Amino acid sequence: VSSGFGIDNLPYGAVAEPGGPARLAVRFGDDAVLLEPYEQAAELPPGTLAGPVLNPLLALGRPAWSRLRAALTNAIETGLHEVVPLAELEPRLPVAVGDYVDFYSSLEHATNLGRMFRPDAEPLLPNWRHLPVGYHGRASSVVVSGTPIRRPRGQLPPPEPGQHPRFGPTQRLDIELELGFVTGPGNPLGTPIPAAEAADHVFGFVLVNDWSARDIQRWEYVPLGPFLGKSFATSISPWIVPLEALKPHRVPARPQDPEPLGYLRTAGDWALDIDLEVELNGKTVSRTNAKDLYWTFPQQLAHATVNGTNVRPGDLYASGTISGAERGTQGSLIELYEGSRFLEDGDTVVLRGGSGDRISFGEVTGTIAPP
Amino acid sequence: VSSGFGIDNLPYGAVAEPGGPARLAVRFGDDAVLLEPYEQAAELPPGTLAGPVLNPLLALGRPAWSRLRAALTNAIETGLHEVVPLAELEPRLPVAVGDYVDFYSSLEHATNLGRMFRPDAEPLLPNWRHLPVGYHGRASSVVVSGTPIRRPRGQLPPPEPGQHPRFGPTQRLDIELELGFVTGPGNPLGTPIPAAEAADHVFGFVLVNDWSARDIQRWEYVPLGPFLGKSFATSISPWIVPLEALKPHRVPARPQDPEPLGYLRTAGDWALDIDLEVELNGKTVSRTNAKDLYWTFPQQLAHATVNGTNVRPGDLYASGTISGAERGTQGSLIELYEGSRFLEDGDTVVLRGGSGDRISFGEVTGTIAPP
Repeated sequence: VSSGFGIDNLPYGAVAEPGGPARLAVRFGDDAVLLEPYEQAAELPPGTLAGPVLNPLLALGRPAWSRLRAALTNAIETGLHEVVPLAELEPRLPVAVGDYVDFYSSLEHATNLGRMFRPDAEPLLPNWRHLPVGYHGRASSVVVSGTPIRRPRGQLPPPEPGQHPRFGPTQRLDIELELGFVTGPGNPLGTPIPAAEAADHVFGFVLVNDWSARDIQRWEYVPLGPFLGKSFATSISPWIVPLEALKPHRVPARPQDPEPLGYLRTAGDWALDIDLEVELNGKTVSRTNAKDLYWTFPQQLAHATVNGTNVRPGDLYASGTISGAERGTQGSLIELYEGSRFLEDGDTVVLRGGSGDRISFGEVTGTIAPP
Repeated sequence: VSSGFGIDNLPYGAVAEPGGPARLAVRFGDDAVLLEPYEQAAELPPGTLAGPVLNPLLALGRPAWSRLRAALTNAIETGLHEVVPLAELEPRLPVAVGDYVDFYSSLEHATNLGRMFRPDAEPLLPNWRHLPVGYHGRASSVVVSGTPIRRPRGQLPPPEPGQHPRFGPTQRLDIELELGFVTGPGNPLGTPIPAAEAADHVFGFVLVNDWSARDIQRWEYVPLGPFLGKSFATSISPWIVPLEALKPHRVPARPQDPEPLGYLRTAGDWALDIDLEVELNGKTVSRTNAKDLYWTFPQQLAHATVNGTNVRPGDLYASGTISGAERGTQGSLIELYEGSRFLEDGDTVVLRGGSGDRISFGEVTGTIAPP
């Protein structure tokens, strides 16, 4: 089987014959194992696995997820599973995304961007080490890997302060290498998810490319945050790697200073040792790892719900750009090339992730189409 | 019939017997006229009006909306309609909200808030007169009028710069009086909605109370915008007033200086002459009008999609707080009371809107529950 898509992984997705309806599956090697025949063995309510999206399965929670994973593992190990070659299928968006939240949890990325966007101030704002800064992105334009990315038009900053903005296609089209989690059952409005329970609400992880138009973003983002500079498209990898499969790849998170407030404290190892890389037109331009993110995913979910807002099955929470401190470990072009290289029409970006030969996230790809 | 809910209005909503399933209806006086019997007369696809939400109707677009309105008007005028008294029903959320966007389109509000949040700088930022500033809010916590609002907890600003934040219930719980539009068919990803076509994608309007925790917001909002200070709840009025019913209440918008870029220019009268009021514990504390908003709703939708992002049926776009220049015409407590009065547990806020005795938006109410 393809490296990283063996019995230890079994990530979930949706696939279709070209033009056909989406069917739910796990990936095993270079094949899809369709889920629907396992509904009864996993004791799931009828229709849970009928597709086209995983949301009904996500709503059931971890005991149901574990039963299904056990049923699939058993069938595959005993060779009783039927497969469809992925070569005959196309990936579809595996979840209907309710709300999409994007964090900003890499210390190195926040420092780098702060320096570029606010050159005359402290790069890291006073709140950054106290809470996982985040904002709501657009859910409608979350697309599956392979979807072409049309260069957005919009208002570009005035050439000089006080002058008028210009209108046109972005000249500073960028990527953001991120990891995102997809939620399970969620909580009723008014009842926060404690950090200690956050992992029970996390079904699994995908790679995220949070495409960004830096010029549009720079002009529009004060005071209410990014809007059109981000909302034109966000690509995710087709296969959701279950948190259960990531257990051997959890490691201690980096120290936090100052110690966060009580609702953000967790016990256990919640950083993810996932190697990541960015490929631009066939050439690897960045290699990094998710384990150095400052804020962990249970902290992110505990923070995002501390005011009582409700999470629904299929929400997407992305980490923010994952950047290391060294040259060649940053997750965006603006950091890698310090503003001298952005995406041209026809450029293809591939993000990859995995851990040795046990876990692969596959890839999320996108090619820039003209405006 | 109740003033403002006569034959000229016929707003759409969802109602249910207590504990029962939601059914779609228009409001006529103090009664609900259920929609499902009119599916055939309006030549709608079977199931369009089966509920529990209006989204399938929204997806069909204006010709279908006009046929349904004509069928309802005809039945009511000829007295052939059957009614259920609203006293026997409870309102439900009338749409499944895909994406929720909140603008910041009142010049007076943006100036007032800028002065309070950034006392040492120009209150209006350089981009404000060039584009309708907006951001994505949380869709999951959009609730229907009457839903209790639990006081959120969260990180409150450090007492002095450089100190640590505190944790606790917000001490500065506020309202924002807004008008929001609900979208119809929408556009495919990659294809902006031109300003001249924007109104065809607008089904109708509701009152919006964008509850805000000013202390949480103030600490968290740099650099990515409001998040937990807003995401705990957003209340909307139960009845969506169709744009068709608002035609006689459209008036010229206020002049814009400088003239906006081409994609934001519109012909026709797109301001809405809607009187609005805020009632706090039974006492009217603010009266204003929506017609003085700086940015119009076609401009808002044209801007929000100029980068090609896709609108779906049932998206909600709110205006931002509607404030006038005079004392007693502001749409938030922080403006009305300059920080000396916020919401206490048990306080009840009612927003109302309408135009003479022809159009009523009814009300959106909320009572503060303890944390």
